[in-house]
Amino acid sequence: MKSIEWLGNALRILDQSKLPVEILYRDAVSYESVAEAIENMEVRGAPAIGAAVAYGFVLGALEYQGDRDGLPSFMEKVQSRLAETRPTAVNLFWALRRMEDRLRECWDMDDLDDVRRVLTEEANRIAEDDRRMNRLIGEVGNEIVPDKANILTHCNAGALATVEYGTALGVIRSAHLAGKMIHVYADETRPLLQGARLTALELLEEKIPVTLITDNMAGYLMQQGKIDLVIVGADRIAANGDTANKIGTYSVAVLANAHGIPFYVAAPTSTIDLKVANGQEIPIEERPANEVRECFGVSVAPEEVKVFNPAFDVTPAKYITGIITEKGMVTAPYSVNLLKLMVRS
Amino acid sequence: MKSIEWLGNALRILDQSKLPVEILYRDAVSYESVAEAIENMEVRGAPAIGAAVAYGFVLGALEYQGDRDGLPSFMEKVQSRLAETRPTAVNLFWALRRMEDRLRECWDMDDLDDVRRVLTEEANRIAEDDRRMNRLIGEVGNEIVPDKANILTHCNAGALATVEYGTALGVIRSAHLAGKMIHVYADETRPLLQGARLTALELLEEKIPVTLITDNMAGYLMQQGKIDLVIVGADRIAANGDTANKIGTYSVAVLANAHGIPFYVAAPTSTIDLKVANGQEIPIEERPANEVRECFGVSVAPEEVKVFNPAFDVTPAKYITGIITEKGMVTAPYSVNLLKLMVRS
Repeated sequence: MKSIEWLGNALRILDQSKLPVEILYRDAVSYESVAEAIENMEVRGAPAIGAAVAYGFVLGALEYQGDRDGLPSFMEKVQSRLAETRPTAVNLFWALRRMEDRLRECWDMDDLDDVRRVLTEEANRIAEDDRRMNRLIGEVGNEIVPDKANILTHCNAGALATVEYGTALGVIRSAHLAGKMIHVYADETRPLLQGARLTALELLEEKIPVTLITDNMAGYLMQQGKIDLVIVGADRIAANGDTANKIGTYSVAVLANAHGIPFYVAAPTSTIDLKVANGQEIPIEERPANEVRECFGVSVAPEEVKVFNPAFDVTPAKYITGIITEKGMVTAPYSVNLLKLMVRS
Repeated sequence: MKSIEWLGNALRILDQSKLPVEILYRDAVSYESVAEAIENMEVRGAPAIGAAVAYGFVLGALEYQGDRDGLPSFMEKVQSRLAETRPTAVNLFWALRRMEDRLRECWDMDDLDDVRRVLTEEANRIAEDDRRMNRLIGEVGNEIVPDKANILTHCNAGALATVEYGTALGVIRSAHLAGKMIHVYADETRPLLQGARLTALELLEEKIPVTLITDNMAGYLMQQGKIDLVIVGADRIAANGDTANKIGTYSVAVLANAHGIPFYVAAPTSTIDLKVANGQEIPIEERPANEVRECFGVSVAPEEVKVFNPAFDVTPAKYITGIITEKGMVTAPYSVNLLKLMVRS
């Protein structure tokens, strides 16, 4: 199962909101369709969203019917629409900036089809970069996974959250492929249950031993000595190492700290945002109340009850043992070491 | 809505497993029916289970068709059946012991109906004691609730978990009735969602401001300074103060500690088990995997995924600011102060 697949004139998107019960695809032929798929979380996960908006940008250029001169202003609209879909994951903005830069470099191309070809190549490169980075993250991360480790993960930072292979689950895949007898505890990750629906599915497919728990069981497992390390993905990493990730990650990090358990973040460098000094500056998306009042479409609470539904939280750098990137492992002091990493070619 | 109601020859049990979507009652006319209602969590909450088994014991005596001499051995079977329903909440065993003691005191009564009357009176007293204790817990606990407090609670320790009024929610009710402008954050409490289904319902009915969150949001709220104190119920309190309560309570306690937020347990003295030295000796019930694979009856995970589903966890005494009982507030050192409390008449 691939999160997204470019078909030449359409982006095939696996609708992850219905997994594992239904396997549905949306062939998006317009940038608007891509934007809606991101808003509805049919495609989700910071790296997958990055690649999806790149192809959404290409679809905008393919849809465009006017003359060459009108393209830049049309593409500004395309970019705005795609940029407003979700606020927290920085890969979305990173990918759009790459596409925008590439479009700007096409200023001297008169033929619209030439421009479209260049943009398609750039989107393909973004997707290919993501595949490559995830494999490298897996290699780097494998180093810190002990044999027979019991690993806790939260949400889904797997193949489905990326173009392929995954970040946190990429590390887990690599450790498994290296012959380590690992076992994964997957937090179900309410409200949208990405752990129960997606992580469990991916690990079962790979025959990596997995046990599903509800989010509130992680602390108990740690208390019982059943967790050796935690690995999660990231939606945005600030210059000081503070990391935004799926709601509940912060609680897991505090619990890991209280039990002396290493807590790792696995993410490509496209998730690092040096323009954001610390976690307080990362915008946190709030999502509809019904996601909490419902569970996979079924009402589970009085419909008049008020709800608070932040989609992400920020884990302060002090709780993070290391950040696993395709360029290597980063540890504290993050302000210094993330900067060093990013200037390294 | 009453969790249980004695009808003279039957126990009317509100089926809490269907709330808030359906309001169904089971009129149990046999001890077996009461046992099944407890196993299926139609009636749940340590104090409510205590009163329910007392009436289940009475129903056993009403069902009995033999002569006077055969009653004790029949009632042993009744007691065994009721005792095996759930292992963690000690109120169940406490109530059965009260009923057993009362039955033993009837050794010189020849008339079965006299025995039945005595047993009914004892069950009524257990229920009445619970009502009274919850009101007192509310009064004692009100003292520690500041005006305008934002209170986090986990699971449902309300009227539905008791015969009436509630323990943790009893404190919240008392603070609200005292005119304090409190606001409650209710953890939804997976897997069975007692917070979303029951606590939200009770607080809405009382017009106490409540906001529903998923369990993994509590840490984020604490980080944002939005929680002033935590109050939870208890299923069993060991002699050293270690407290078993619904799974996830331990995580909340660790998080509260990390943020310097007071963490209170509210429970009647019938929940205190001095025969158990510490939390490690409290048996933790594991429940069926499908409770986690499903959410209110709907499949949310691959059906072949392995699950771990402990129904409770133990919060070490060091994380507990105070235990609110009907006899007053207990604080550390718990080993000394719980003993003092229990010998006080």
